[in-house]
Amino acid sequence: MTPPPRGFPEAEFQARTARAQSLMAEAGIDALLLTTEPEIRYYTGFLTRFWESPTRVWFVIVPAKGKPVAVIPSIGAHLMGQTWVQDIRTWQAPDYADDGVGLLAATLQELTPAKGTIGLADQMESHVRMPLAHLRRLERSIGARRIMGDATITRRLRQVKSTTEIAKITHAVTIGTSAFDRVPEIAREGVALSQVFRDFQRLCLEEGADWVPYLAGAAAPGGYGDVISPADDAPLRAGDVMMLDTGLIWDGYFCDFDRNFSLGPPSIAVAEGHAQLIEATQAGFAAAKPGARMCDVFHAMNDIVDPGRGGSDAGRLGHGLGMQLTEWPSLIAADTTLLEEGMVLTLEPGVTLPGGKIMVHEENIVIEAQGARYLTRPQGAEMVVI
Amino acid sequence: MTPPPRGFPEAEFQARTARAQSLMAEAGIDALLLTTEPEIRYYTGFLTRFWESPTRVWFVIVPAKGKPVAVIPSIGAHLMGQTWVQDIRTWQAPDYADDGVGLLAATLQELTPAKGTIGLADQMESHVRMPLAHLRRLERSIGARRIMGDATITRRLRQVKSTTEIAKITHAVTIGTSAFDRVPEIAREGVALSQVFRDFQRLCLEEGADWVPYLAGAAAPGGYGDVISPADDAPLRAGDVMMLDTGLIWDGYFCDFDRNFSLGPPSIAVAEGHAQLIEATQAGFAAAKPGARMCDVFHAMNDIVDPGRGGSDAGRLGHGLGMQLTEWPSLIAADTTLLEEGMVLTLEPGVTLPGGKIMVHEENIVIEAQGARYLTRPQGAEMVVI
Repeated sequence: MTPPPRGFPEAEFQARTARAQSLMAEAGIDALLLTTEPEIRYYTGFLTRFWESPTRVWFVIVPAKGKPVAVIPSIGAHLMGQTWVQDIRTWQAPDYADDGVGLLAATLQELTPAKGTIGLADQMESHVRMPLAHLRRLERSIGARRIMGDATITRRLRQVKSTTEIAKITHAVTIGTSAFDRVPEIAREGVALSQVFRDFQRLCLEEGADWVPYLAGAAAPGGYGDVISPADDAPLRAGDVMMLDTGLIWDGYFCDFDRNFSLGPPSIAVAEGHAQLIEATQAGFAAAKPGARMCDVFHAMNDIVDPGRGGSDAGRLGHGLGMQLTEWPSLIAADTTLLEEGMVLTLEPGVTLPGGKIMVHEENIVIEAQGARYLTRPQGAEMVVI
Repeated sequence: MTPPPRGFPEAEFQARTARAQSLMAEAGIDALLLTTEPEIRYYTGFLTRFWESPTRVWFVIVPAKGKPVAVIPSIGAHLMGQTWVQDIRTWQAPDYADDGVGLLAATLQELTPAKGTIGLADQMESHVRMPLAHLRRLERSIGARRIMGDATITRRLRQVKSTTEIAKITHAVTIGTSAFDRVPEIAREGVALSQVFRDFQRLCLEEGADWVPYLAGAAAPGGYGDVISPADDAPLRAGDVMMLDTGLIWDGYFCDFDRNFSLGPPSIAVAEGHAQLIEATQAGFAAAKPGARMCDVFHAMNDIVDPGRGGSDAGRLGHGLGMQLTEWPSLIAADTTLLEEGMVLTLEPGVTLPGGKIMVHEENIVIEAQGARYLTRPQGAEMVVI
């Protein structure tokens, strides 16, 4: 598999910025203030694992016209200088006296009219990545009334992926598929689940992942207790259902899917549970067409795995996927978002088995004009037996 | 190397909570509200990679007396139920109508007096991990004046590590050391830096890392341009200086150190630069004793790498280390924090070479009664040549 080219043509950042600016004009927002990794990368292409450190704050402003403006620690100037952003203002961070708030306030004043409004992401799945005391200082400095929500502009734009973005997600999925195909090399009776986790991440890297930010899973007889736990050192045993759920990254884009394996032949309950998961996934796939709503896809799946009830403890049956492991929107009964071409989603049904154990299954799809297309190689009803 | 036991005895969480409650009483804070991964894990032991998903918000309250109380999405109830926390209140998230704000407000009302104060981390290196609109809704619901800063209580507690925490960091360092020892297996002329990055992460996993959240580095002739870039696909060439800086995790604790390698014999400028980095590191090590201030250690190092000036673009020469890749405090001129026994720090000097290229070096130390002790195996003045 030849990887697609890394990065994006500058035209893509121009188009994203222009679309945001058009929505800003509609919403009466004079500048967007971005503080988190995906927001900043979306408009600039600034890609680094350095966000792992909580020390530095990073600010990018999307003004009403023109390119984004970066207000960042000097340690990032060299890397930001390689993006299409030209106006890069820096301070030497950490600075215990101010840490960029003064520079940010001055830049916002310069880029917006006197009583202009500044939109900050404030809805679900967002947070403001700066100290609360500094946000309050910024509000006092430029006027608290000037800071408002961002009318979910960035979230709405990110929800629909470009061809180039889809190629990157597709490549991440392909790497994940190759790693899952090799699970029989690393998992067998007697091997600790923690060892399987380490080895699975190694396989993802060997198959081409840049890094593996997410791996969850479980192994237990007759299903598992939850889907977010780290691995323990208990050895795999015959009769275990082992699930691995990975979010690996290629060029800044995630895949997010899982596979279930049975150590030896599965019990009837487990086999039936798995078949039901696949049936639900296929029903979700069939319902996922442009013009359908997220809740329609949810109900198509939920009617199979949890008929007549409102959904499991997991809270949803899938979600958006892209620069983050999980993105807006969600497959829940309350989500009326219309599906459109270019959306990338996970279908992630869960079943509760007799005795209270659970199983989940997950595939990745893209919405095209005629309907959904699998990015993953969809799993058959029969479980893979190790 | 036998790993230490995973997890913590319950007594450690009891002690952390009791210390926080004592500081809360001093500061006039009736409850701490925690929203981020390290804060919540510090008081509860809740360890999961699921934080990679931005969808769910998580809340833990440390009341004036008694155990922490969790207000979390139902998907996390099973895992939180395995910690020492007993009072776990859940909602099915994502919930577009409320998403836990109502439950959180009610729980805070129940656990605090009528006009009681609620402390939220608001200083540098912190952020509030919930949507800004929801924070404002919470303020309207319980009274904005009741929400105040946390008086840096959690930051101050986390700054000094327990014996058990130090054992985990030490094990992470040991794994990193074993991986660095194997770099000659994976790096040679003609291999792409991106391939070296993938292989180095594989080595970290093979040596026992649970996962590898952070890897940065560079390779270029005569030094590099920055220290936060991802790898490109350019092949290594004779004369390159290659630096790898890893933050791998074992049982939720990081190491954070780097190593420089020369592809073929280094130039005189590079060799001298490296020797200066080691000299500065040793000067920092000698200065790092209980009772010294962070700025004393900074000056001991900076007088060697950047005499008479205020520090480089990197902004600091080291930092705390533990549950996060970088933690409070910082080795900068403005930091007057007193070093005390149990603090784990990185010493991370940088030099600018002729032509504007840079080099950095990093070791990890723990402060003990008599002075600093290296957790890493300190590098000699001479560069490793590949």
